[in-house]
Amino acid sequence: MKSDAYLTIALDIMGGDKGPLITIPAAIMAIEKMPNLHLILVGDETIIKQELSKKNLLNSPQLSISPSTQIVEMDELPSSALRTKKNSSMRVALNLVHDEKAQACVSAGNTGALFSMAHYVLKMLPGVERPALISSLPTNNEDKHVFMLDLGANVFCDSNVLYQFAIMGSVLAEEVDDIKKPRIALLNMGSEDIKGSDHIKFTGAQLTDNPHINYIGFVEGNDIFSNKADVIVCDGFVGNVALKTCEGVALMVFNKFKTILSQHIVTRVMGKLFANTIKKLFKSLNPDQYNGASLIGLRGIVVKSHGNASSLAFLAAIFEAAKEVERQVPEKIKSKLEQSLADR
Amino acid sequence: MKSDAYLTIALDIMGGDKGPLITIPAAIMAIEKMPNLHLILVGDETIIKQELSKKNLLNSPQLSISPSTQIVEMDELPSSALRTKKNSSMRVALNLVHDEKAQACVSAGNTGALFSMAHYVLKMLPGVERPALISSLPTNNEDKHVFMLDLGANVFCDSNVLYQFAIMGSVLAEEVDDIKKPRIALLNMGSEDIKGSDHIKFTGAQLTDNPHINYIGFVEGNDIFSNKADVIVCDGFVGNVALKTCEGVALMVFNKFKTILSQHIVTRVMGKLFANTIKKLFKSLNPDQYNGASLIGLRGIVVKSHGNASSLAFLAAIFEAAKEVERQVPEKIKSKLEQSLADR
Repeated sequence: MKSDAYLTIALDIMGGDKGPLITIPAAIMAIEKMPNLHLILVGDETIIKQELSKKNLLNSPQLSISPSTQIVEMDELPSSALRTKKNSSMRVALNLVHDEKAQACVSAGNTGALFSMAHYVLKMLPGVERPALISSLPTNNEDKHVFMLDLGANVFCDSNVLYQFAIMGSVLAEEVDDIKKPRIALLNMGSEDIKGSDHIKFTGAQLTDNPHINYIGFVEGNDIFSNKADVIVCDGFVGNVALKTCEGVALMVFNKFKTILSQHIVTRVMGKLFANTIKKLFKSLNPDQYNGASLIGLRGIVVKSHGNASSLAFLAAIFEAAKEVERQVPEKIKSKLEQSLADR
Repeated sequence: MKSDAYLTIALDIMGGDKGPLITIPAAIMAIEKMPNLHLILVGDETIIKQELSKKNLLNSPQLSISPSTQIVEMDELPSSALRTKKNSSMRVALNLVHDEKAQACVSAGNTGALFSMAHYVLKMLPGVERPALISSLPTNNEDKHVFMLDLGANVFCDSNVLYQFAIMGSVLAEEVDDIKKPRIALLNMGSEDIKGSDHIKFTGAQLTDNPHINYIGFVEGNDIFSNKADVIVCDGFVGNVALKTCEGVALMVFNKFKTILSQHIVTRVMGKLFANTIKKLFKSLNPDQYNGASLIGLRGIVVKSHGNASSLAFLAAIFEAAKEVERQVPEKIKSKLEQSLADR
């Protein structure tokens, strides 16, 4: 069925709040847009066949099915999922990457479970102690976004881990966004050298000494959006709080704005005129929901879509995975880490 | 000059980016609005006399001058300020609180220096290990805000310190905002009990056992604005990042919004119609700049205004200090801590 020229991605069809209702339409859109894409749909065989036959796609050379019998629940403990869900759509999709039958895996399922399973099945790249969750956020420059890691895969990160994250983030920005010498910054509570905790200062000193990294120093929370850096590095606790704070502010502003617009007949009419532009703006402030986040540092590509992602958001996650395959992100992270460690 | 019925506050006139240009007009507005307020203006005597004589206020019974000869620079190291600026306006203002000549001190100066000096001069309340910087942020409910601490006075806080912060925050919300049984939450990277670091889980368990605190559990970054809690507790690093992220998002949205409004003639006209409402909304998202932040846990009241605060913002900080004096916040923190420790 599948030609070697294909780029193959395994999809966890059952993951996410709406599972196949979202993931199958996204898969269909993806193969229409990328003729060289082959997708392995992992999940309940009956449901998948039913949906594909509706669209006359049962015999598409771009699609194949890998049946699984279990589902990782969204609120399931990662440790329990790892132990008891060996035939889940998430686990089987990761196994396909491990067995080199797929080059990447995309899931909208339980983040903690995906993290634990991916870590267990795929293992870390040499020189990487922990995988990181990375995604992009908007900046005040329309054409630029900023990559931020870790977004919650690891609660606390010591300076070695932060150092590795900086290297991993640099590779992703260079390969996925075509940025030469991406500007790498550490998130801190002040931009002066004396501010912050010892392990962050130590990471800063290590990065300054690394000739392969364009380290620009410390940035603060407001600088996430000021286009000062291409990659911002922090531990998972801080990154998660920053990301969720961003979403919270966006939602609040959006709601307050709707109230303002609904208060007067004139603004009510006008609001409709630029409703789409505003919606787009606020969508971009909810990156977690609208872009895929990558789990990097593993011996394989894993992209996480939001639990309540739409088909379009899941499609974006598939494209993100395809780009990482084409650009050989894990191989490049491995080689950048080797360079950096050799120089230390 | 000063009657005993007066409420007396010492102002660091020289602190902040614009010093007397901002602080003296704020002082004049404050005494006009509060007839029982007495302000001690600490700073360069010549400048202060000059400004007061312009307004015929040299003999106002509500104002007195305490001369100082030094200024703490905005970028000065706290340790250096503490050692070498013993006759600075900041230090003299704090000394007045220590010597019980003023009941509170307000400064827009260098935050780190203010923190170190206040800690050194005023000392901690019994049972408090570290002072915290606390301020309020807006929520999606127009009439409610949320107090958040620590906002950057302490990089890392162990569970004892977070526990004390929860008690201090509860008292401030109760006294300053008249909230009976304020809802206290810990900021975490997930709302489930299993999420986050051990010291936060331990603090949660301690707070659950405290009958004097209405502890509601963990909240995430987006919940800061969802009116789930009246007080949110976190360490200074995380609080600082959340606060600055909020400001960064607000600024970016504001700028993008201006761009949208300026793109079409119709929206340009309409934008002017509700420009003030929008400005108010975005001001509320910049709490650091527009409200005072209190340094609590000390044997005295210290309110910090933003370095580039306007006169109105500095005025708000004076009023905040006055309210804390009237409500005897330090005494109430002391007594709540005693109750809580007695029950442990």
